[in-house]
Amino acid sequence: MAILQVTQRGAVAKLVMNAPERLNALSDEMLAALHTTLDQLADDPKTRVITLAGSGKAFCAGHDLRQMTAMRQAPDGGAAAFKDLFDRCATVMARIQSMPQPVIAQVHGIATAAGCQLVATCDMAVAAKGTRFGVNGVNIGLFCSTPMVALSRNIPRKQAFEMLTTGAFIDADRAETLGLINRVVAPETLEAETTQLAELVASKLGAAVKIGKGAFYSQMAMTTADAYAYTGEVMVQNMLREDTAEGIDAFLEKRDPDWNQ
Amino acid sequence: MAILQVTQRGAVAKLVMNAPERLNALSDEMLAALHTTLDQLADDPKTRVITLAGSGKAFCAGHDLRQMTAMRQAPDGGAAAFKDLFDRCATVMARIQSMPQPVIAQVHGIATAAGCQLVATCDMAVAAKGTRFGVNGVNIGLFCSTPMVALSRNIPRKQAFEMLTTGAFIDADRAETLGLINRVVAPETLEAETTQLAELVASKLGAAVKIGKGAFYSQMAMTTADAYAYTGEVMVQNMLREDTAEGIDAFLEKRDPDWNQ
Amino acid sequence: MAILQVTQRGAVAKLVMNAPERLNALSDEMLAALHTTLDQLADDPKTRVITLAGSGKAFCAGHDLRQMTAMRQAPDGGAAAFKDLFDRCATVMARIQSMPQPVIAQVHGIATAAGCQLVATCDMAVAAKGTRFGVNGVNIGLFCSTPMVALSRNIPRKQAFEMLTTGAFIDADRAETLGLINRVVAPETLEAETTQLAELVASKLGAAVKIGKGAFYSQMAMTTADAYAYTGEVMVQNMLREDTAEGIDAFLEKRDPDWNQ
Repeated sequence: MAILQVTQRGAVAKLVMNAPERLNALSDEMLAALHTTLDQLADDPKTRVITLAGSGKAFCAGHDLRQMTAMRQAPDGGAAAFKDLFDRCATVMARIQSMPQPVIAQVHGIATAAGCQLVATCDMAVAAKGTRFGVNGVNIGLFCSTPMVALSRNIPRKQAFEMLTTGAFIDADRAETLGLINRVVAPETLEAETTQLAELVASKLGAAVKIGKGAFYSQMAMTTADAYAYTGEVMVQNMLREDTAEGIDAFLEKRDPDWNQ
Repeated sequence: MAILQVTQRGAVAKLVMNAPERLNALSDEMLAALHTTLDQLADDPKTRVITLAGSGKAFCAGHDLRQMTAMRQAPDGGAAAFKDLFDRCATVMARIQSMPQPVIAQVHGIATAAGCQLVATCDMAVAAKGTRFGVNGVNIGLFCSTPMVALSRNIPRKQAFEMLTTGAFIDADRAETLGLINRVVAPETLEAETTQLAELVASKLGAAVKIGKGAFYSQMAMTTADAYAYTGEVMVQNMLREDTAEGIDAFLEKRDPDWNQ
Repeated sequence: MAILQVTQRGAVAKLVMNAPERLNALSDEMLAALHTTLDQLADDPKTRVITLAGSGKAFCAGHDLRQMTAMRQAPDGGAAAFKDLFDRCATVMARIQSMPQPVIAQVHGIATAAGCQLVATCDMAVAAKGTRFGVNGVNIGLFCSTPMVALSRNIPRKQAFEMLTTGAFIDADRAETLGLINRVVAPETLEAETTQLAELVASKLGAAVKIGKGAFYSQMAMTTADAYAYTGEVMVQNMLREDTAEGIDAFLEKRDPDWNQ
């Protein structure tokens, strides 16, 4: 059984982390599987949206503490291995945002530490009512410094600080209020609702979504003036596409676009 | 009938976009009228607040797709014309924020694409209950990349991403919750409530509001340390004004300031 | 009676601003007392969390306008003195965020102008129901330009702009919704609830909290890529600590950590 299951249905690729006995921890194997699979999907023209779920009781409980503890046996106490681990983890997080396709987290059970970071990093997130979110590394003396990068770019500052320093969990409703996730649904409809959101986005012109997602994160790091100069060029390139011309013509003629995608 | 109507009432200049048959689209003419009018008002000492509304059924439905489609006839497929259009649009957006006076959007009906960008760009916004907001260019294959610059600086990241990639509308209550607008009011009181907010701001010392608005956007683009160094200087200049001295004296003497503005 | 009372209880240092007759204004004396006391506590190994409250009817009503008015007698009209004042105030604000320990505001009554800035600057804030918050300098002709630096990094843009240009107060419930504070409690439990939050954070490994707080503000000023490179190193250093190894071992062995702090 693969540690990361991939199912394709139409234009939606569904990934399921499959190490339920370890609460889908981001082990070396899980990080490698995510990295490889995302790289493959990035080049797959038929995939327009990706969902990411976890099997078993939890979405993801963060790093694999047993693997990390084993790394301490190295002569340097694990320094090089830890650095390599956090680099690989950050690379996967960056890969999610650099994917041409939107990635939607489908969250249930718990999403803690780097698992919460994964939710914060995905472009959108749907969670089952009752899901608990936390950046609770502080409880074991390991502050969630890398998860904080993603978390503090999703929710207000004081609420992020509180989660990080108290290690307290928040529930799905609170996560929605704070902006960490897009919506809360009944557990029994989680997969259907996430798929519905994915298919809605997949029904749009894939080229336009790809253009937009790329520009989304780029422009957020710029000053407003630079962001306008940049996105103005993005809009020009978007306008020059034949399928965009067809979309606009169809709208003006009050008919459906013929996109053949 | 001018495409942009300007009415002055006391210290408040009220602009009404007046192309209802085109849902007040940001056509070449509308952008030019906005630019010219804002430039004039910027130098008008009697105007301390500006409101911006739309006539007819909608606040503003974004760019003028018929004009844009016509631009495709150029030998370059419209590339130069599109670039020029997005530049002019960004210039108007920048002008709103560089105005010495606060600009308040008075929103009803729909505010879509660049119309939603206009709401996000104004310093404040009041909307009628039932107003719908969307950055729905993705529905016709043209991702709202430039509106995204303003939107993603107003509302949380995941909610912005969802609006941009699903093309879904949000209602006024949701817009208020997310931070896109300041308040939702009954449609029949929209103008009165917007005017009341404008007059409240206009009742303050105009010089202080001007100083503050300019500093608001400047400091947000800075590191915290730079922002303090900069705003510290701004506060000194504000303190050295005679009318500010009068304001503080009046406060300490428990009387109304004599500002003669 | 000291202008700033300091009480130590376990790992929590409680500061109380004590100039109730001036609504705990940030006078020269108050700023100096805060600066000196924070510097001392920064080096105090037994203090793991700090709370900051005000005695009397208000948390803090901002700058001391009588002192500022007196500064106008200088030959330069007060320019140098004002600059020095805003520098000292910004230094105290920066000191709060550069403290190794989290600083929690315990807020009641009113928190206005630089007093609201103080709330926004603290890492977390608990407020009594009924507390009113405002950046209302605009009412006396002195725009709250320095408080705006902290406020606009806590709450959404349009809501910050409204508070700054209208001078209107918001209540504690609204402040919580906007993200300015962490929670609203009954006035009679304000001290107990703030202390409980402080003790919860103080129960964590102090070294991890210190590492995390330092990284929190640093990484927020960086691009996402830089933030990951930086916090990855922070995580490595955190992992290499003996007490963190003990925390992780204890977790894996399902026992309490033996931290002796």
